[in-house]
Amino acid sequence: MRPSGRAPDQMRTLSFEPGFTKHAEGSCLVSFGETRVLVTASLEEKVPPFLRGKGQGWVTAEYGMLPRATHTRGAREAAKGKQSGRTQEIQRLIGRSLRAVTDLSLLGERQIVLDCDVIQADGGTRTAAISGAWVALRLAVDGIMGKLSADPIRTQVAAVSCGFHNDTAVLDLDYIEDSNAGSDGNFVLTADGAIVEAQLTAEGATFDEEGLLRLLRLARIGCGEIFEAQRRACGR
Amino acid sequence: MRPSGRAPDQMRTLSFEPGFTKHAEGSCLVSFGETRVLVTASLEEKVPPFLRGKGQGWVTAEYGMLPRATHTRGAREAAKGKQSGRTQEIQRLIGRSLRAVTDLSLLGERQIVLDCDVIQADGGTRTAAISGAWVALRLAVDGIMGKLSADPIRTQVAAVSCGFHNDTAVLDLDYIEDSNAGSDGNFVLTADGAIVEAQLTAEGATFDEEGLLRLLRLARIGCGEIFEAQRRACGR
Amino acid sequence: MRPSGRAPDQMRTLSFEPGFTKHAEGSCLVSFGETRVLVTASLEEKVPPFLRGKGQGWVTAEYGMLPRATHTRGAREAAKGKQSGRTQEIQRLIGRSLRAVTDLSLLGERQIVLDCDVIQADGGTRTAAISGAWVALRLAVDGIMGKLSADPIRTQVAAVSCGFHNDTAVLDLDYIEDSNAGSDGNFVLTADGAIVEAQLTAEGATFDEEGLLRLLRLARIGCGEIFEAQRRACGR
Amino acid sequence: MRPSGRAPDQMRTLSFEPGFTKHAEGSCLVSFGETRVLVTASLEEKVPPFLRGKGQGWVTAEYGMLPRATHTRGAREAAKGKQSGRTQEIQRLIGRSLRAVTDLSLLGERQIVLDCDVIQADGGTRTAAISGAWVALRLAVDGIMGKLSADPIRTQVAAVSCGFHNDTAVLDLDYIEDSNAGSDGNFVLTADGAIVEAQLTAEGATFDEEGLLRLLRLARIGCGEIFEAQRRACGR
Amino acid sequence: MRPSGRAPDQMRTLSFEPGFTKHAEGSCLVSFGETRVLVTASLEEKVPPFLRGKGQGWVTAEYGMLPRATHTRGAREAAKGKQSGRTQEIQRLIGRSLRAVTDLSLLGERQIVLDCDVIQADGGTRTAAISGAWVALRLAVDGIMGKLSADPIRTQVAAVSCGFHNDTAVLDLDYIEDSNAGSDGNFVLTADGAIVEAQLTAEGATFDEEGLLRLLRLARIGCGEIFEAQRRACGR
Amino acid sequence: MRPSGRAPDQMRTLSFEPGFTKHAEGSCLVSFGETRVLVTASLEEKVPPFLRGKGQGWVTAEYGMLPRATHTRGAREAAKGKQSGRTQEIQRLIGRSLRAVTDLSLLGERQIVLDCDVIQADGGTRTAAISGAWVALRLAVDGIMGKLSADPIRTQVAAVSCGFHNDTAVLDLDYIEDSNAGSDGNFVLTADGAIVEAQLTAEGATFDEEGLLRLLRLARIGCGEIFEAQRRACGR
Repeated sequence: MRPSGRAPDQMRTLSFEPGFTKHAEGSCLVSFGETRVLVTASLEEKVPPFLRGKGQGWVTAEYGMLPRATHTRGAREAAKGKQSGRTQEIQRLIGRSLRAVTDLSLLGERQIVLDCDVIQADGGTRTAAISGAWVALRLAVDGIMGKLSADPIRTQVAAVSCGFHNDTAVLDLDYIEDSNAGSDGNFVLTADGAIVEAQLTAEGATFDEEGLLRLLRLARIGCGEIFEAQRRACGR
Repeated sequence: MRPSGRAPDQMRTLSFEPGFTKHAEGSCLVSFGETRVLVTASLEEKVPPFLRGKGQGWVTAEYGMLPRATHTRGAREAAKGKQSGRTQEIQRLIGRSLRAVTDLSLLGERQIVLDCDVIQADGGTRTAAISGAWVALRLAVDGIMGKLSADPIRTQVAAVSCGFHNDTAVLDLDYIEDSNAGSDGNFVLTADGAIVEAQLTAEGATFDEEGLLRLLRLARIGCGEIFEAQRRACGR
Repeated sequence: MRPSGRAPDQMRTLSFEPGFTKHAEGSCLVSFGETRVLVTASLEEKVPPFLRGKGQGWVTAEYGMLPRATHTRGAREAAKGKQSGRTQEIQRLIGRSLRAVTDLSLLGERQIVLDCDVIQADGGTRTAAISGAWVALRLAVDGIMGKLSADPIRTQVAAVSCGFHNDTAVLDLDYIEDSNAGSDGNFVLTADGAIVEAQLTAEGATFDEEGLLRLLRLARIGCGEIFEAQRRACGR
Repeated sequence: MRPSGRAPDQMRTLSFEPGFTKHAEGSCLVSFGETRVLVTASLEEKVPPFLRGKGQGWVTAEYGMLPRATHTRGAREAAKGKQSGRTQEIQRLIGRSLRAVTDLSLLGERQIVLDCDVIQADGGTRTAAISGAWVALRLAVDGIMGKLSADPIRTQVAAVSCGFHNDTAVLDLDYIEDSNAGSDGNFVLTADGAIVEAQLTAEGATFDEEGLLRLLRLARIGCGEIFEAQRRACGR
Repeated sequence: MRPSGRAPDQMRTLSFEPGFTKHAEGSCLVSFGETRVLVTASLEEKVPPFLRGKGQGWVTAEYGMLPRATHTRGAREAAKGKQSGRTQEIQRLIGRSLRAVTDLSLLGERQIVLDCDVIQADGGTRTAAISGAWVALRLAVDGIMGKLSADPIRTQVAAVSCGFHNDTAVLDLDYIEDSNAGSDGNFVLTADGAIVEAQLTAEGATFDEEGLLRLLRLARIGCGEIFEAQRRACGR
Repeated sequence: MRPSGRAPDQMRTLSFEPGFTKHAEGSCLVSFGETRVLVTASLEEKVPPFLRGKGQGWVTAEYGMLPRATHTRGAREAAKGKQSGRTQEIQRLIGRSLRAVTDLSLLGERQIVLDCDVIQADGGTRTAAISGAWVALRLAVDGIMGKLSADPIRTQVAAVSCGFHNDTAVLDLDYIEDSNAGSDGNFVLTADGAIVEAQLTAEGATFDEEGLLRLLRLARIGCGEIFEAQRRACGR
């Protein structure tokens, strides 16, 4: 029995609120249950130094958590003067995930920065961020389609966490489940069925091939729902 | 004529949404027109080192702006590794303003940290932050009134900006007005009529006593409206 | 009765020692009583990146305090690896104040950096710094008048603090008065009577319009004396 | 055909040189082909603040790369003043992997820090680091077995990378293969068959369940060889 | 012929102005010609962590240069966020030099911090700093002699630079000589004839035993004059 | 009697292992007894900004110590976010020493960076680093002799420490001797007999001219042996 009463393969309530802020070329407030992340996509007509003159674009991400997004207040990273290892790990994952579905040469010499800021955390902030970032990216790219020869976004990308809670494989862990999970993982999948990233960790317990496949099966169910919600949010 | 069509002494639409996030002891999403700031009040049962053992509490503030709260994306302070001078100046102002209406010895050895994060900026983020911070502080203190001998919050505090736009004194400047104002100021007032802070700056133009008094008169009008909205938000 | 025995509207002994150091294009050791600040004006034949190619100059300031300028030694900011919020707030104020009386386009593509280093602190370091910075700036500009079409310095600028000490409005607070003042303010005025900045703060006590005007009246008296001393220091 | 001429399931030459440095409680120079990592285990009779008084120990890791371990010189992180996101991601992975096979309560209030410094890089530095860290940890713990009630190390842990090179699943990627791999992963396994971590990434290509299982099968082959080499190095 | 017209063994005009600032327990503005350094000695009734409870004191130094102490303005170290290697090298040298003549156990559990801030630089700032620091230290210790069982300062310490200018060994190099010297050195000597530090560097030219002894002979002459000036400054 | 049983003028066993790593243009693992330093020379076809377009090259050095190179683990400088004063002092010394024997204009617009990383420390890491850096530099320059008009390396450079241990002047101090030495020094000499750097320090004891000359005589003996070992390592 899950603390929330959800079935093992049941996602939390999903919500994608496009256009949450007015300045960004694309934006989305994404909720996975109580977890809420604001994603903005900022379009810049230039690329980072390592890509200059190569005729291709770049998609990158930054991640942050408001100090009181969590149960107890965490120190503000801007005040501490550096981003934690966790923050950097997550923003690198988000960037890779979105680049995996983007044809950077079709984008031209442009950069899109996806800022993912956690307003409220209840487990799964990185998977919500990736899923919401796709919507913000989609909206930002929609706005410049007139300047592009073809759509640089090949397909949708979404992410969800899965893990073993009391030896049961469950989908979309909330904070309580995440804190107690023997082993868990984050899966990033595309709408055409491919795996982009799979990160499984067992601190305490361990797992095997069968466990891995069961989690992956749940991830496919969860991402299916996310893909649908993303499409609705973008009016597609 | 103001760009927004407002009368000179007309505030933007005010909105205080209490309880916007679930973890904080007090929280409020405050909007001054398109400017939106999320304020959380975090209660900690300890005080900073310089106050230990002195039998009194502390109220302090931190301020941040999401990278794409503005027209063009600003660098993330956590990634740059330091808070700008502007950020520090604003968070010091917020802290002083709230302490001005709080009896710190009645609070006991507790600290309340007010995190003010700008979701969307359209001028007046610091005044919205101060005004919203009072609501978050009020809610957080309401939650511990059972542990206190008396209410440590003496009165309400609110802030508003005023300035000269095309030689007319106007209330509650939005971004366009703020960018073009010859001189402007931020006023922090209490509900019992006292001035807590007045910061007037003339980059380009200058002003004199009469101008100062005209701006202050507008500020009293604006803060009056804010006080009422704050009371409604707290159910008082 | 003031601790120093001064009359309420009496400034401390003012002294401007121009040319205190030999390398700077302009320099001045300014004393407001026991408060001593060394200001140097460094002329650079280039402007910061955001102004390049715009045909105008820039005036900016940096502020620092020697570790033992104060009663107890403060940590060296260079060793701590960052400037405090207070330091940044003050140097921003100094820069704005000097720019308010400078026609940046007459300066041409040049930058003048005003370094204000507090040798000894006894209250009012920022007001002494602004007042001394005008002298250093004046001397530096005098040295390049041959290259300019007209004098870019429109008028003098000076600053002084005022506040309520034991309910009496007093001028030019020293450290003891500053520590005990219910509310106080810093005023930056020009020699032609305009207000450039007014920053009033009430930590503890508050004030009202009348108090504000009384402080401003004192500030006008104090700045009048400073303007005269500045002129003598520059041989004008 | 692999650039190195190895068979798809063939590891590079493995070498574990225990006791490479004399001061550390445990040390090991590990080589996976041309990749060489020096690991030292430092035993400290204290734990980090968050564990004080809880009667358990801690195992953590730090990772670094000498500036010229790579083809072109990279900036020294100590000189840049911060560790990259990649560095932090890797050192977090190493720490989790070793803790997964350590009973921290049997260790008592002690900390073991595993410093993994890459002397020469040719792909797979993180997997070599984890595999070598186990040897260094084993040696350090051997030295204090007299003080412990039971062996805190439950089993061996090792890591290896696998990936698709020209559509063939290959084991233990070297730098050339790693640079060209469509998708690849790092697997951390224990000697009793459990998976501790699996991190699969597809930048460009993607993969599916079958691909994942094929990589995992290779990883089991590779880790088998590593376990044997670890045992020989420790004289077990 | 020296640019300044001085004889090879002639010091610049020396001046020690004790009590230059009022807050420090000891202070001194030292001038070696146009080089001016303000030294303050701050007495703290505690020692750094590594000495706690060992019944002895500590003497340490910090060094800084005002941004426009030099011909062209240097970036402020506090703004850059770190002290240069040169700064750290110099402050370590000053600290060692003063500790060499101090009996730290006679000082008791106290720390004296010597802040050496260069007001104007014209060569030899570190030697002026060491020489002035002795005066500031002497004055600070004089103030607590009543609390000490014996004088912790064993003898005087002073420093001077020497070098080869146009193949002539010259004493107390000013900036022009220092910039052109083939090889030069800094000598720290005690009043009882011992060498505390000798640092000789040849960037470009080199030197031999004879050259070293000639420089050392000059240093003894120069320090003799400094010792006398130090005594006069302290009224001894 | 020395702790190691060595004669006063006896060096530790010297070893230079050229080509220790494969990527660097020159590399060398140098051992002075138990002290082991890995030096790599990285050739870059560009010079630092201050030399651009001046038709000459640059040689510089960076120094680091692996955290557990020493008896007790030191904090990793990359994790602390800054290099210590000691580190910077040493790397500046290494750079100056190597530049003293290099004709930078013959090198052309190229930079050679010497990374000196201490694998194991037992006293004399800076002298081993300088001595090994010459070998790495020699090898790197050998590789580009075809592009140069003449050999930019004028002669060999080597360094050794000497000091007084129980009042006896001894050569090449190991850690135990270094910790107990009354006074000691580091000498950097060239193969043609010149002194490049001499740094003598007396923390506690002091020394005089005669002592200085005795240490220098020992240094000449030690460097003689190092020069021979360097030549063998480079096949000269």
